[in-house]
Amino acid sequence: MHDVARVAGVSQSSVSLVLNDPENCGIPAATQERIHDAIRQVGYRTNRLARAMRLDRTDTIGFVSDDIATTPFANQMIKGAQDAAWEAGRLLLIVNTGAVDHPEHAELESAAIDQMLERQVDGIVLAAMFHRVLTPPPALKETRAVLLDARVADESLPSVVPDEHGAAFAATDHLIGYGHRRVGFVTTDYPSAAPPARLLGYRDALGAHSIAVDDDLVVVGVSSTSGGRAAVGDLLDLDDPPTAVFCYNDQTAMGVYQAARDRGLRIPEDLSVVGFDDQQLIAAELVPPLTTMALPHYAMGHWAVSYLLTDELPDEPAQMVLPCPLIERGSVTEPPARPRGSAWLS
Amino acid sequence: MHDVARVAGVSQSSVSLVLNDPENCGIPAATQERIHDAIRQVGYRTNRLARAMRLDRTDTIGFVSDDIATTPFANQMIKGAQDAAWEAGRLLLIVNTGAVDHPEHAELESAAIDQMLERQVDGIVLAAMFHRVLTPPPALKETRAVLLDARVADESLPSVVPDEHGAAFAATDHLIGYGHRRVGFVTTDYPSAAPPARLLGYRDALGAHSIAVDDDLVVVGVSSTSGGRAAVGDLLDLDDPPTAVFCYNDQTAMGVYQAARDRGLRIPEDLSVVGFDDQQLIAAELVPPLTTMALPHYAMGHWAVSYLLTDELPDEPAQMVLPCPLIERGSVTEPPARPRGSAWLS
Repeated sequence: MHDVARVAGVSQSSVSLVLNDPENCGIPAATQERIHDAIRQVGYRTNRLARAMRLDRTDTIGFVSDDIATTPFANQMIKGAQDAAWEAGRLLLIVNTGAVDHPEHAELESAAIDQMLERQVDGIVLAAMFHRVLTPPPALKETRAVLLDARVADESLPSVVPDEHGAAFAATDHLIGYGHRRVGFVTTDYPSAAPPARLLGYRDALGAHSIAVDDDLVVVGVSSTSGGRAAVGDLLDLDDPPTAVFCYNDQTAMGVYQAARDRGLRIPEDLSVVGFDDQQLIAAELVPPLTTMALPHYAMGHWAVSYLLTDELPDEPAQMVLPCPLIERGSVTEPPARPRGSAWLS
Repeated sequence: MHDVARVAGVSQSSVSLVLNDPENCGIPAATQERIHDAIRQVGYRTNRLARAMRLDRTDTIGFVSDDIATTPFANQMIKGAQDAAWEAGRLLLIVNTGAVDHPEHAELESAAIDQMLERQVDGIVLAAMFHRVLTPPPALKETRAVLLDARVADESLPSVVPDEHGAAFAATDHLIGYGHRRVGFVTTDYPSAAPPARLLGYRDALGAHSIAVDDDLVVVGVSSTSGGRAAVGDLLDLDDPPTAVFCYNDQTAMGVYQAARDRGLRIPEDLSVVGFDDQQLIAAELVPPLTTMALPHYAMGHWAVSYLLTDELPDEPAQMVLPCPLIERGSVTEPPARPRGSAWLS
């Protein structure tokens, strides 16, 4: 700092003032500019450790996630969180604690939060890679915390999740809007908050159009391409098959494309399909390109960190629900003029 | 610490000794256990800032990546790096600096490294999401640094990259081993170190089997499903078409599947295909499942951080090249008995 002061031709205390509180230090802009030039010239670096000790603020945010390695959603959540942190001069400190259903998971999650608290993070984002209701480690209460793609049942922590119900309603409503009355839903029993909420959204959309729910049109498969391919077979082989299918995710929809091809059905002429997730590698690349619901992962990550950095938090922890936009591509059209299936043979 | 000492019935200096150097403090294991119980009971947390100031070591590693949001590879690289850090009691501090071809990229990369140096990280991993040769910001020389999926031309920094040449050689050799002599290569002009290295590996494998390189069998497309679909058309419509195709990546291979279907060709009976990347959402899910080369992203991330944490670094910065395993699935078989194409019509 001595060298910076010498090069800029100012006192060391002026350098210190400019570094610590540039807006209120009362030092003219031109002089501040000269000090910054000198800083660059000398190669001076703030020691953030000393600064953190003094201000009781490290300008780092902890990001604890359950399993970033096996999901394509992690990127966007981390990027959203990181962009919000960066815009506010903060960096993300991250730990991945592994699969939720693994016995060591809870232990690692606690240990990760301990590590972050020891490093005096300014707050912690606890992120799930699939929307779920969870019980966070008690230590999370020792700092500002927000849940990302997860909630606690008693709403004692702030959270941000996608609007699963609204998205399933919109997807089903979109198909009904094209004239479909026999709409199937290929879902999954994955232990997430998403399947039940999406099932409800699907049912409510049918109800809003006075279409009776036919339980035969809801099938449960493994949440994958092969799972979707197997599960939708039961629907396509019904005597009175659906003319449109809403799928739990784009992988499932890719399986529906395969099952349709196996049966010589064209998409969308013989079968309309709506997916979920807007998976970069799949949705736009299928033939025809898949109409799907996009998950707001980037926006959720950004919201979580922005909320942590709010000066005055509300008395009640915010429970934010973000919308999932409909991405229209080429997999939806009107139902075929002549229905398929033996129920219609005359 | 006073409370911990009181609860454990020991002196404050004993607590301090156990926390700072448990192995050499000379305090009996039973007493150490009692002190740890007291720590849990009292809820005492080490203040790592004070410790970092004292030891000149923050136990954090910086991870600067170019663009984690648009690639499915980031997860595994981050997870590998993070696991290696965690195993050694370190956490990762991450910054994503955005697309390489964006004008603000270099500026953000410098700023990210500055932020990390100010936070006294113990070292920095500079990660590229596509294997490339780069010019790192000068500030990187101020700390231990390693390049992940990237290199510098003069080898002045340690690096870890996949064995592109070896993988392309193995993929082509695998096809030749099944009896194919007309092997196509659908590649890309993406500005990465991968395409030229893979082209060389493909050519060298042909050469090793004394098969003349036919430039007509190498086509360049956009690195995507639709790009692969378009590019491979030129190959499939040749008078003397290939019986097997090696693809730049699994997305391209998915496009080859579509192009084959367009022409009524069966995979693998009429056309064998090998991909690259082992993309979780695509490779195993195509019909038939895709034989492909796996990229060692997890291993590269793990290696990078492990190298940074080595006590004694070698004099010459390591230039590590990791192998890409062949993942055999169902897209390769022997060439058809009767070749396709007008050149063979009799």
